[in-house]
Amino acid sequence: MYALDQLKALLKEELAKQEYVETPYSLYAPIVYILADGGKLIRPMLALIAYNIYRDDIEKVLKPAIGIEIFHNYTLLHDDIMDDAELRRGKPTVHRKWNINVAILSGDAAAITAYKYIGYCDDIYFRRAIDFFNQVAMDVCKGQQFDMEFETRNDVTEAEYLHMISMKTAALLAGGLRHGALIAGAPEDDYTALYEFGLALGMMFQLQDDYLDVYGDTEVFGKKIGGDILENKKTFLLIKALELANPTEKKELEEWLSRKCDKDDKGGKGSESQDKIKAVTEIYTAIGIPALVQAKIDLYVVEAKKACEKINVPPERKRYLYEMMDFIDKREK
Amino acid sequence: MYALDQLKALLKEELAKQEYVETPYSLYAPIVYILADGGKLIRPMLALIAYNIYRDDIEKVLKPAIGIEIFHNYTLLHDDIMDDAELRRGKPTVHRKWNINVAILSGDAAAITAYKYIGYCDDIYFRRAIDFFNQVAMDVCKGQQFDMEFETRNDVTEAEYLHMISMKTAALLAGGLRHGALIAGAPEDDYTALYEFGLALGMMFQLQDDYLDVYGDTEVFGKKIGGDILENKKTFLLIKALELANPTEKKELEEWLSRKCDKDDKGGKGSESQDKIKAVTEIYTAIGIPALVQAKIDLYVVEAKKACEKINVPPERKRYLYEMMDFIDKREK
Repeated sequence: MYALDQLKALLKEELAKQEYVETPYSLYAPIVYILADGGKLIRPMLALIAYNIYRDDIEKVLKPAIGIEIFHNYTLLHDDIMDDAELRRGKPTVHRKWNINVAILSGDAAAITAYKYIGYCDDIYFRRAIDFFNQVAMDVCKGQQFDMEFETRNDVTEAEYLHMISMKTAALLAGGLRHGALIAGAPEDDYTALYEFGLALGMMFQLQDDYLDVYGDTEVFGKKIGGDILENKKTFLLIKALELANPTEKKELEEWLSRKCDKDDKGGKGSESQDKIKAVTEIYTAIGIPALVQAKIDLYVVEAKKACEKINVPPERKRYLYEMMDFIDKREK
Repeated sequence: MYALDQLKALLKEELAKQEYVETPYSLYAPIVYILADGGKLIRPMLALIAYNIYRDDIEKVLKPAIGIEIFHNYTLLHDDIMDDAELRRGKPTVHRKWNINVAILSGDAAAITAYKYIGYCDDIYFRRAIDFFNQVAMDVCKGQQFDMEFETRNDVTEAEYLHMISMKTAALLAGGLRHGALIAGAPEDDYTALYEFGLALGMMFQLQDDYLDVYGDTEVFGKKIGGDILENKKTFLLIKALELANPTEKKELEEWLSRKCDKDDKGGKGSESQDKIKAVTEIYTAIGIPALVQAKIDLYVVEAKKACEKINVPPERKRYLYEMMDFIDKREK
């Protein structure tokens, strides 16, 4: 078996080849740009890890794994337009660096490239690979639709929120794992368990993301802290806070929610943005939200472990699954 | 064999079922909306016709044909944002009726639905079906990229233009034909010839579209005449006019090109938009552009016929291919 850093090195090497680039280059330049900084590469890494549980000829899963990563970045290109996000991994977003049309069309080209790369597998797996990928891709789309609809609602429930992130975030992590296992010839029970494992992992990942957006360290996390608060984003933290706040806290919270702050505000000391972030964070802390998020994450850790146990291979073949779980549980960026 | 109106009735019946609609409905409402008026349904009809050359169990090609149509409408949703088009088939475009985000995300959902529907075929054809569709989808994307790049150029050559429309328009017509034949079990030589036939048909279709946008009858054509002229769109007509104009005509044409007119201008008598349309049309006519477009279309008719002859089935099985060719050659809408 390959160690995680070996897998990552192989993945980066394959990505650097940019074999997906065709003529006209201008169509692919934004894809090259958004893939250049790499990000955490969690989704393709999960595909590699799942494949490597069953097979060692890891070169056969590199292109499909890159397909998963390209699909992820296609959703980022389009989501960043919808959110009018300014920065992505510290660099200007594509629609701000170029324009909206470029981000739409290069995103479309990225989606097609993803389908092409997903298809690099033996014919016996191809039908399931595409059927599964269609389901995952549509889940991601539906998750984004729910997320957008939540923007204008103040009554989003915890259950609705968890359903939304299971589609928008968790489905693709789960899909990457299932895809890797499928094309390695894993039995159906195994790749289904890996999908369940991935869903739990995805929930942990997104809840941690919500948490770090408020309580993370800007330097380590790599994005501005408090962005979700400024956008009144319906995160797990806000939903639970609205549910559990006492009347005074609730009134104060709703007062802050009614104040629109410019999210591109650089947020120097004394800016209203900084005041809002500070005040809302204090309310969260007073209510005990941090412990609540961690407890929720712990529940998904239990679910992930349960799913992991169902995978019918010797324990040592699963060690990197546990390592990834640990990494996501403890991540600070 | 089914007559064309029988095929169209079956297609409309299947479309009306809206089986592609899932939860949340809001994600699919814009797809239902853009499909509702039907349009000419040329692309799915070609898939049906190609299938019907080989097989009579036409119900097996209905879903894949709808996949082709949904894909076409996905490109319209996104293209209309990029062109900021006001109307589509006489109704407000999705990004104007809803907003840009809705048109992006529902377009994305439509693309995934298209992949799903394309896949309704026997396993032995599935790999080729998806590989071919990936190629066609990417060609359409590249065609749109070239078209956008042409907007800011005044030196687009005829060859570049023909290359662009072969991707943006012709590839999907050709792809629909090839797909229908493939999943009917046609031999490779046949579905390749049908693809070539479709490319020629697509070129005829687009050149006729350019022509009708200037010389068509608003009532019959269903869109405002002169839209391309107001947008300085690099059509076959404009490219040939710039190439063949005498110095006086060229100066006049360039003068008009430099004047920006509001394309949403309702264009009453005496409006600058109407003046521009009238003047540019007169220059085209003086240069002899109409005859030139028709001659170019005739060349593609010859190519289409040549490709059609290569299809190894009795002549009576090809009658609807010839009918479609005739329909596109003579269409006024």
